[in-house]
Amino acid sequence: MTGSWICEKHTEGYAVKWKIKDILHEEQTRYQKLAVVDTLEWGKALLLDDALQISEKDEFIYHEMISHVGMCTHPCPERVLIIGGGDGGTLREVLKHQQLNAVDLVEIDERVVENSKRFFPAISCGFTDRRLNLHIADGVHFVKETSFRYDVIIVDSSDPLGPATPLFNLEFYQDVYKILKADGLLVVQSESPIFYGEVFRSVYRQINTVFPLTRVFLAPIATYVSGPWSFTMGSKKYNPRELAKKPADLGYLKYYNEGIHRAAFCLPPYIKEMILSVR
Amino acid sequence: MTGSWICEKHTEGYAVKWKIKDILHEEQTRYQKLAVVDTLEWGKALLLDDALQISEKDEFIYHEMISHVGMCTHPCPERVLIIGGGDGGTLREVLKHQQLNAVDLVEIDERVVENSKRFFPAISCGFTDRRLNLHIADGVHFVKETSFRYDVIIVDSSDPLGPATPLFNLEFYQDVYKILKADGLLVVQSESPIFYGEVFRSVYRQINTVFPLTRVFLAPIATYVSGPWSFTMGSKKYNPRELAKKPADLGYLKYYNEGIHRAAFCLPPYIKEMILSVR
Repeated sequence: MTGSWICEKHTEGYAVKWKIKDILHEEQTRYQKLAVVDTLEWGKALLLDDALQISEKDEFIYHEMISHVGMCTHPCPERVLIIGGGDGGTLREVLKHQQLNAVDLVEIDERVVENSKRFFPAISCGFTDRRLNLHIADGVHFVKETSFRYDVIIVDSSDPLGPATPLFNLEFYQDVYKILKADGLLVVQSESPIFYGEVFRSVYRQINTVFPLTRVFLAPIATYVSGPWSFTMGSKKYNPRELAKKPADLGYLKYYNEGIHRAAFCLPPYIKEMILSVR
Repeated sequence: MTGSWICEKHTEGYAVKWKIKDILHEEQTRYQKLAVVDTLEWGKALLLDDALQISEKDEFIYHEMISHVGMCTHPCPERVLIIGGGDGGTLREVLKHQQLNAVDLVEIDERVVENSKRFFPAISCGFTDRRLNLHIADGVHFVKETSFRYDVIIVDSSDPLGPATPLFNLEFYQDVYKILKADGLLVVQSESPIFYGEVFRSVYRQINTVFPLTRVFLAPIATYVSGPWSFTMGSKKYNPRELAKKPADLGYLKYYNEGIHRAAFCLPPYIKEMILSVR
């Protein structure tokens, strides 16, 4: 962090700079460098290893999309597993579903949870919910060892550079498949198809190897890198184009609704092409 | 331009940096500063007053969306007017429609046309088409004085800072309305709702004052500012949700198709809200 700007270098030739008013907190956790900053225009923001994870102003887009698309595709998601998502944003959205009986959240880095509780009360509000079982643990081990079986599993990871790297491996997706019920489904954040095309293709290829039905959906998220952001769903039974549940009972959301659910799966040919060329 | 990076400062608190290999051309035209650079990752790019207008790598997204959404909403666009668009990208897309008899392109700055012909042959390829009438003229005057009547008018302008400023005024939209046929329609680029919310709202408000039907559609364009980019349509008769023409006969496009046409009009609630609050 130099001067009053932070800089995210996404590729060799592209970088984004954010003006900040203040650095509220910095620490080196056991797993990564963690910082909370107050930006000039995007509210408070959480950074892990210098990459912006969430900003108060538009975190709702990412969290609504990674949660409700899967939760509304499944007709009755009673037990849900969130891998990562230590800030609590995905948890907050999942908890809006009335059918939910229990949610396990497995975050490797306790400091993410603690700092989110301290600095982002509107994002971490779900940590007090009685339906939550919080596990400070390695998600890779958890999916290997748990005896629970899930309706929906959501992988809300950071980029495949730091501690999240093993969450982008074939073996992990195979383990996830085993702990999903016979009609369960998986949703992962799968990076920017434009800026991180190799990761995007790799996630698709691996989920497509494991699941009978693989679908990509998109949303542009201003505080992430420019262009569309992608999510990938692996499903054992339900097709996300056939919305199982009308999202009307979710109350007022700011990004997700039925139209957005359907529109997000309409891929432009240049992105379809990236997937078709995956072998 | 400092060192081997160019920097676009979009707001007080947000900037994007592009690494460049070379500055191929720079000049001060009568209207604006014009530069052509060779970027590390996005091919050649055109800048006007230091703002990136097009990159070879993803210009197709903007040009397909500003052209085909309107051209496919109108059942038979025979005569089309493009205001701005001196690089020729919109022209290239419009010319793909077989029903087209004549297209007028009105660009204020001849140097944009000349430099596009020199540096961007794949974008400026339409300038030799026999259906084109090229006018080096002020679009605001042109729409006041022309005796032609149009099926579709496309305003492919730069940001409302330099010479494009009068193209964002109510009087201009009123003049456009008069030179559209009884079932004609207008499409304009209307900036980023997130970063330039005031312009986005203002364009909507003004077009909505003049036209019986106003609709916004979105596309994320990686080389523009992050998040969704917006386009606004004002229509005298046709509703863009009822696609008049299947785009199948357009050959291979890289961004636009029937699904994308429909999906682009699905606005997330937070953007709908911006429009509903327009008075």
